[in-house]
Amino acid sequence: MALRVQKYGGTSVADIDRINHVADRVLKAHDQGDKVVVVLSAMAGVTDSLIGLAQQASNVPDKSELDVLLATGEQTTAALLAMVFKSRGYKAKSFLGFQAGIKTDKSSGKARILNIDGKNIKQFLDKRYIAVVAGFQGADEDGSITTLGRGGSDTSAVAIASSLDADVCEIFTDVDGVYTTDPRVCSTARKIHKITYDEMLEMAILGAKVLQIRSVEFAKKYNVPVHVRSSFNEEEGTMVVNESADMESVVVSGITCDMNEARITLKKVPDQPGVSAKIFTPLAEAEISVDMIIQNTRSGGETDVTFTVTKDDFDKAKQISQKVAKEIGSSDILTAEEIAKVSVIGLGMKSHSGVAATMFQALASENINIRLISTSEIRISCVILAKYAELAVRTLHSAFKLDQEK
Amino acid sequence: MALRVQKYGGTSVADIDRINHVADRVLKAHDQGDKVVVVLSAMAGVTDSLIGLAQQASNVPDKSELDVLLATGEQTTAALLAMVFKSRGYKAKSFLGFQAGIKTDKSSGKARILNIDGKNIKQFLDKRYIAVVAGFQGADEDGSITTLGRGGSDTSAVAIASSLDADVCEIFTDVDGVYTTDPRVCSTARKIHKITYDEMLEMAILGAKVLQIRSVEFAKKYNVPVHVRSSFNEEEGTMVVNESADMESVVVSGITCDMNEARITLKKVPDQPGVSAKIFTPLAEAEISVDMIIQNTRSGGETDVTFTVTKDDFDKAKQISQKVAKEIGSSDILTAEEIAKVSVIGLGMKSHSGVAATMFQALASENINIRLISTSEIRISCVILAKYAELAVRTLHSAFKLDQEK
Repeated sequence: MALRVQKYGGTSVADIDRINHVADRVLKAHDQGDKVVVVLSAMAGVTDSLIGLAQQASNVPDKSELDVLLATGEQTTAALLAMVFKSRGYKAKSFLGFQAGIKTDKSSGKARILNIDGKNIKQFLDKRYIAVVAGFQGADEDGSITTLGRGGSDTSAVAIASSLDADVCEIFTDVDGVYTTDPRVCSTARKIHKITYDEMLEMAILGAKVLQIRSVEFAKKYNVPVHVRSSFNEEEGTMVVNESADMESVVVSGITCDMNEARITLKKVPDQPGVSAKIFTPLAEAEISVDMIIQNTRSGGETDVTFTVTKDDFDKAKQISQKVAKEIGSSDILTAEEIAKVSVIGLGMKSHSGVAATMFQALASENINIRLISTSEIRISCVILAKYAELAVRTLHSAFKLDQEK
Repeated sequence: MALRVQKYGGTSVADIDRINHVADRVLKAHDQGDKVVVVLSAMAGVTDSLIGLAQQASNVPDKSELDVLLATGEQTTAALLAMVFKSRGYKAKSFLGFQAGIKTDKSSGKARILNIDGKNIKQFLDKRYIAVVAGFQGADEDGSITTLGRGGSDTSAVAIASSLDADVCEIFTDVDGVYTTDPRVCSTARKIHKITYDEMLEMAILGAKVLQIRSVEFAKKYNVPVHVRSSFNEEEGTMVVNESADMESVVVSGITCDMNEARITLKKVPDQPGVSAKIFTPLAEAEISVDMIIQNTRSGGETDVTFTVTKDDFDKAKQISQKVAKEIGSSDILTAEEIAKVSVIGLGMKSHSGVAATMFQALASENINIRLISTSEIRISCVILAKYAELAVRTLHSAFKLDQEK
């Protein structure tokens, strides 16, 4: 008998038919004696159409009222699923964020969970109720409704699992787990059976998009075992867990590719203290996040400064950089939008040398030129021309033998 | 400077355009210095489509979960209107039922308000916020969401007005007030400028449908002045108030007609103690409400018992009555569905005699036969054949000189 938190995404509750399938799945666990908490997203498309409605009401909809509006999406699916259980003769109850004891800060639209009091849900679980929680939402100290941002239901689920000390938090989604790389790009991509929180974080940040990043941070912080799996079949998916002894043999776990960045280079910047601050302060003030930053020293007291931003921010960043370039006496600005960032990720890099060398050799063997390099403890990323992205992914996938079952 | 509670119904908030009109109207009061609490219904049609969704999920949707589902309708309009105010530069905040301090009992789908703590709203009003309250909903002692039944937003508005000691509770609707009778039936119907709670209760019960009955009961209990008026024009509507000296001259305030009843007669019932109980107990057990009951004593220790029920309950009531008739030895059952109940209503009846006589004479003058009569302190109702209903209404309207301005 286990305590399971199961989260189902928008496509899994897109209509009453699918909600009935979710009920079947939940009842399988319930009927074998498990305690189950179900966390739901809004029906696919509903959040977007509510945002559309809000934009009709106001060009820039007030964020706290937008939270009140968007919260109705998950309230709807939670009530419907609870109804389905009850009509099948089971004890069930829906819980809105505040009823589930989810207390957040006041950052409307991207609230952070401060604490969860699982007492209310626990009482009902002990009486063999199925608890159905509206994901994505909480309440601040004043009792105002807040939402946790896109994908926030993942975080709701992990947080509830942590507060109830659940045996597992199952994230049911439309893919059947986390893959070594994007299967649409590389046909030999394999499902990863087990991955650490840190690796998953790097995968998520780089575009794997299976889990909300904050849910993984939360899982890591409170050591919640997360199982990412398909809502359409019974197969085991990917376990996201703490580092464990049996994982050390794997050097590289996955390859990711992010096509959503653009590059800006300020040429011949005077190599003086304070220049970097002059370049990056105005970008920060414009709320543009800069990802990679590289500075190449040239001869003659000059240097080239290159950085990447997301494509959304590119136009604004370019404009700001042109202004700054003039002020600091940079000779020229170069930009490139057709770039890709390919990364190899693996916990084993901590203790294994040679990963970078293998990566560079593999890319070189296909004549792919590396424009920028950045690294973390468990990741190496290279910026290359976008047209080589798929070839690079396939080459690296094979170079690190990810196509072979371990 | 006044404190006004303004309630807008579903047609007044049917889309963003109309919500903007509501905002205009509210701001007119706000800008002249009034404190305004706005209470909203769901967009027209939304509650029905949510019920449709629930019926897809379950043949008999669980009532408490249905409350959670339906509450999203008013949550949506409240958030949208608050957004509109904020985008126009005003301070505003939406309040769900529980945030507005509306505590109810646990009767899902028809909860009764136990008490309201207006403290939260008052704080914001004092800071010149416009408070936008989701009507129709509250929360029980456990914090579960409840709804107040069809038209419940009227009751929300009156209850909030009472808790804040508001100067007026304005009910904005798609008609411009309460009329002496249905203007579609009688072209000389006039708008009533002032009516008492008791008269309004009789009018509401008999089908005027302008205000939820319970809102009028609430207004009467706490002496809340209610102003029923159109959301589409600026005209004064109808004030619903406590009995006052200047109203005594009006004997009859209005004529109503209810076509939604059917008649059942048990013929030749033994005239013995306990027989009535045998007839009406099974009906009560089947949750059928009986409206009028008439017993005519016949010769020979027998009597005819006639009663009316709503058409919805007619088939079930007929079936039960047939069974009872056999058991108690009634000779026969007669039924009539094509009936109408016309009523004259007026506080003045308490002190004026002759109202009944005038009513019966007027009907007789048109050869309209009266089948049943029932009376209350301020109402006389006659059941007649349905085909005479409109003629009866016009005749009575003119007989009591309701077509003449007083």
